[in-house]
Amino acid sequence: MSNFYKDLEAQKKGQTTELSTALNELKFNDAGLIPAIAQQHDTGEVLMMAWMNKQSIEETLETGHVCYWSRSRNNYWRKGESSGNQQTLISMSTDCDGDTLLVKVNQKGAACHTGRRDCFYNEISKDGLHINSDPIQDPNDLYKKVKS
Amino acid sequence: MSNFYKDLEAQKKGQTTELSTALNELKFNDAGLIPAIAQQHDTGEVLMMAWMNKQSIEETLETGHVCYWSRSRNNYWRKGESSGNQQTLISMSTDCDGDTLLVKVNQKGAACHTGRRDCFYNEISKDGLHINSDPIQDPNDLYKKVKS
Repeated sequence: MSNFYKDLEAQKKGQTTELSTALNELKFNDAGLIPAIAQQHDTGEVLMMAWMNKQSIEETLETGHVCYWSRSRNNYWRKGESSGNQQTLISMSTDCDGDTLLVKVNQKGAACHTGRRDCFYNEISKDGLHINSDPIQDPNDLYKKVKS
Repeated sequence: MSNFYKDLEAQKKGQTTELSTALNELKFNDAGLIPAIAQQHDTGEVLMMAWMNKQSIEETLETGHVCYWSRSRNNYWRKGESSGNQQTLISMSTDCDGDTLLVKVNQKGAACHTGRRDCFYNEISKDGLHINSDPIQDPNDLYKKVKS
């Protein structure tokens, strides 16, 4: 664990630190990525989890539109770039260990590439897996060219 | 991506599958782990993110108490075992890719080892890092022996 985030644990509400230090001390994995949980800011829905690198975090903070790093496309993933379903940044935070981000957003339309509002539609219980939602948009209308 | 979860994308609400197949087809990383987001079921607070292996998922479903895999201790992490701050399972789901879990829980007391309700107290903006909450429990009272 980074000593920087360890040292913050005992700090009080209101304590501030420079952005560059906070970002440099985040615990990225070997691929330079950190998991980012996207949550709809007002309803609390957990929409999706994706990955960011340092540059996509900086772009997100700068533009106010959420930018991930796509592991499958090995490129920046500006959410909604092809689908139109942008995520507007409301706030961003990192956890006690500095190894996970929580991004509160305003999600336009479906967050999931299947056209569902969120990605967590596969409910798992002792009785098995149960799909608990249907698309709110036709996925064929979301992506004319590429999956975003 | 697993073809199993890919094939579920076009299925309708209510579709069910056997538990053993759903768990076998989850996309665990090279260490056999999958990230699990814990969310307070009624308020929507995102409390923490940790990791599970297949056995800890099965235990969680069986007992109704959330069990993670601790990467630092290389052992099962039965949340609340030493602190008393258990997470009771309300529901579990996985995302479209089958590579992330969302666990809705009822969290007793503080979820964070710092004594804060949740782990995401380090708010990050263009202006820097800003601590946005204080502990609700004294961390020295939470762990008499080991950090859980």
